[in-house]
Formats: sequence, structure tokens, C-alpha cells
Amino acid sequence: MEKRKFIYEGKAKRLYETDDQDILIQEFKDDATAFDATKRGTIGNKGIVNNKLSEKIFTLLEKKGIPTHFIKRLNDRDMLVKRVKIVPIEVTMRNIVAGGMAKLLALDEGIILKKPVLEWHYKEDKLHDPLINDDHVMALGIATPKELEIIKKYSYKVNEALKKFFDSKNLILVDFKLEFGRYKGKTMILADEISPDTCRLWDKTTKEKLDKDRFRRDLGNVEEAYQEVLRRVMA
Amino acid sequence: MEKRKFIYEGKAKRLYETDDQDILIQEFKDDATAFDATKRGTIGNKGIVNNKLSEKIFTLLEKKGIPTHFIKRLNDRDMLVKRVKIVPIEVTMRNIVAGGMAKLLALDEGIILKKPVLEWHYKEDKLHDPLINDDHVMALGIATPKELEIIKKYSYKVNEALKKFFDSKNLILVDFKLEFGRYKGKTMILADEISPDTCRLWDKTTKEKLDKDRFRRDLGNVEEAYQEVLRRVMA
Repeated sequence: MEKRKFIYEGKAKRLYETDDQDILIQEFKDDATAFDATKRGTIGNKGIVNNKLSEKIFTLLEKKGIPTHFIKRLNDRDMLVKRVKIVPIEVTMRNIVAGGMAKLLALDEGIILKKPVLEWHYKEDKLHDPLINDDHVMALGIATPKELEIIKKYSYKVNEALKKFFDSKNLILVDFKLEFGRYKGKTMILADEISPDTCRLWDKTTKEKLDKDRFRRDLGNVEEAYQEVLRRVMA
Repeated sequence: MEKRKFIYEGKAKRLYETDDQDILIQEFKDDATAFDATKRGTIGNKGIVNNKLSEKIFTLLEKKGIPTHFIKRLNDRDMLVKRVKIVPIEVTMRNIVAGGMAKLLALDEGIILKKPVLEWHYKEDKLHDPLINDDHVMALGIATPKELEIIKKYSYKVNEALKKFFDSKNLILVDFKLEFGRYKGKTMILADEISPDTCRLWDKTTKEKLDKDRFRRDLGNVEEAYQEVLRRVMA
């Protein structure tokens, strides 16, 4: 399939229509943003890495019974995906305290949570993606109670599958962000991408950060960290 | 009973020990703060009004089966209460969009919610009382799942009782804040106060604000609004 009309440009990806109205091409860029897009830059070959990683992980999750928008990878930067209407909720699942949760509650990064912490952030740039709760989701009318239940169920399943998978690659899954969407106006499926842009991954032995925090915090070797994750995941 | 050792000064109240170790005297001040205590002032006779209102409302809620810390009113500004260890959660129940929720989600004040919205704010001044969810409560260890269930149940019961009560006084209960505490180390009971400091109350006919928003927003006639609520509640 070929790219037809360009329809959307996000911070890290572009979307194009295809000849099939239910199928899009998702193109992965090297652009990186952080801190509410106040920090901008590029990470060399990030698009290629994230495309391959997302292919691998979506394939794994499909096998575990989690429906995703992934159809197939077309080339280095493009992937064929089901066209969904994105639910404007950034789902964050946390196994270890880091990032926003450390800041919100003044907790030390690295605290292992007894139970995973699941958060909804209202995906609305101009409000800075605020943390919200189930009642806010209902008040905003952005998902039904049933849809929210499905999103919860899939999010925990994703966490279980990915914790185990990354552990086998000597990586700790600290936390991650998911986005879901409605396919053909109803079926809730996992969308977006799964990569070091959307997951915090630490080396199991050294606790070295191998994710976008290297870019956020100017830790250096950003491109190398993404390549290292790809190398381990593909090994 | 008489005031013995002074033990705590909050923004609007002081607490004193009594000769009974399980009983405190809660003294209502005229001090008012807003916007994370960046705005400070006094509202004439507020302490007297809030003491009387809280007496009336706690008595009503006890009759509805909600246990509270209220024992009896002693005089204009003092009330005898059960000594509790406060759970550091500010419980906010909303029937109509206003205040923090309007700001958080960029919604117009005055939107009637189809279902009440219940929020937890972590009571921690230095973090600015952030909105948190159930999982954060568990991660912080500030309440058990069972305690949180009890708090939820009581909060909905309080809302039902107070909506009806204020409606009969020609007042709309827009939203309110509750605090709970553990009495004798275990029983969860309603504590703090219930007043125009902690409830948004609008005149049913004119929609005029009769609560602390008059102070927050410099709307004038602040003392008069508190007196008017007291007059109607006592009528």
C-alpha cells in the first residue's frame, strides 16, 4: 500500500491515508520532544528503531490476546495500522516510581511499587495533559464506563506481558504510556507506539536509563541507548 | 470541658486537648485563606457562623447514619470533637463544575454533572494538595483499600443528604470538601467542618455565590453571605 493524503502530524509520527479507508500508514520521525514540548530535538534513527520495536512488541501483544492497530511494517519508517479514533487519554502504568509520579508526590525515583499504579492523563496539550480520574473521564464523556474497563484490563495485561518480555532482555520496565482508539467506531484497540519514547527502561544490572530520559535530562548517548534496546529486543 | 494544651493550628481552626485524651476542643477562627494560602484575610464572625453551621450539619449527618467527630457545641467558637488522626486526603465531591475542576479541564463553571465527581487531593501543602487517584493513595499508604471504600460510601451519602438539605433552604450544593479521620486508631469518621468555607453554595433562584468564592474572587459582602447561609440553615 502507498501513502495517499497526509492527515496528521504528531510529535514523533505522521499519519497518511491509504487506498483502504480503514487503514493508515504510520510514519516514525526522529523528532523528540519533552516537558510539554518545551524541549525539542532529534534522536538519530529513532524513527527506524521505534518502528521496529513497535512491530516486535505489537506482534507479541497480539499473541497475548491484546488487539492492536498494528498490521505490518512496510519499511524502515512506515508501518501499516488500522485507522482508529484515538481516545484522548494517555494511559500511564507504573511499576517503579519515576518521572511525573516522583514529582507529583515528592517520592524518590526508583521506589518499587507493591502494586502497579495506573493513571489517566487527559490528552489535551493546552491543558498540559493533566492527571484525571475515572469520574473526570465520565464527566468529559471521552470514554464510557465499559470502555474504561476494557482499557484497564488491557493495560494490566500489557504490563504483565512487557514486564516479563523486557526482563528476559535484561531490562526493567519502569513505566510506560499507552494510547487506545476505537476501530470502525467501536472496537477498543491499542494504538500509537511502544518504544523507548513511551517506556522507561533501565538496564537490570546497572540501572542505566535506556529511554527518552537520556534526551529529557541530557544524559548523552541517546541514540546509542535506543540502538541498545533494539539490539536486545531483537536478540 | 475546658481547653488544656494547644496542639494544632490550621488555616481556619485551632485544636486543644481536654482532660479526656480522646476528646478535643475545635475552635473556629475568622481567618480565611485561598489559592494555596497565597491569599490571606479574615471574614468577620466567620468562626461563629461556621461553628453553628457545622453543629447543625454534623447533627443532621449523624441522623443519616454517617459517623462524625462532632460531640457538642460549647460556645460561639468552640466545639467538642472526638480526637482523630486525619487521613491526609481532601475529599472533593462535585455536583456542578466550578473551581479546580473548571480550571483543570477548561470547562465552564455551572455545568451540571450527570453524575457527581469524586476527587482525592493529597493533603500536603508543600506539594499544593495535588489531585491523586486510588492507586496513588495505596502507593502512599495513606489509607487502606477498605478505608477508601468507606470514605467513598460516606462521601456519597453526605452528598445525598446535603443536596436535599440545602435545596430545602433554597441553596444549590455545587461542591464540597470533606476530611476523614481514624478515631481511636481505627473507626473512620467524618471530621473537620462543613461550612461555606468547605462547600460551594449558590442561591437557587439567583445563582448568587454564598460561600468562600466571595472572598477568593473579591466579590464583596463576604460576611453577609456567611450570615445569610446561617440564617437559612437555622430557619
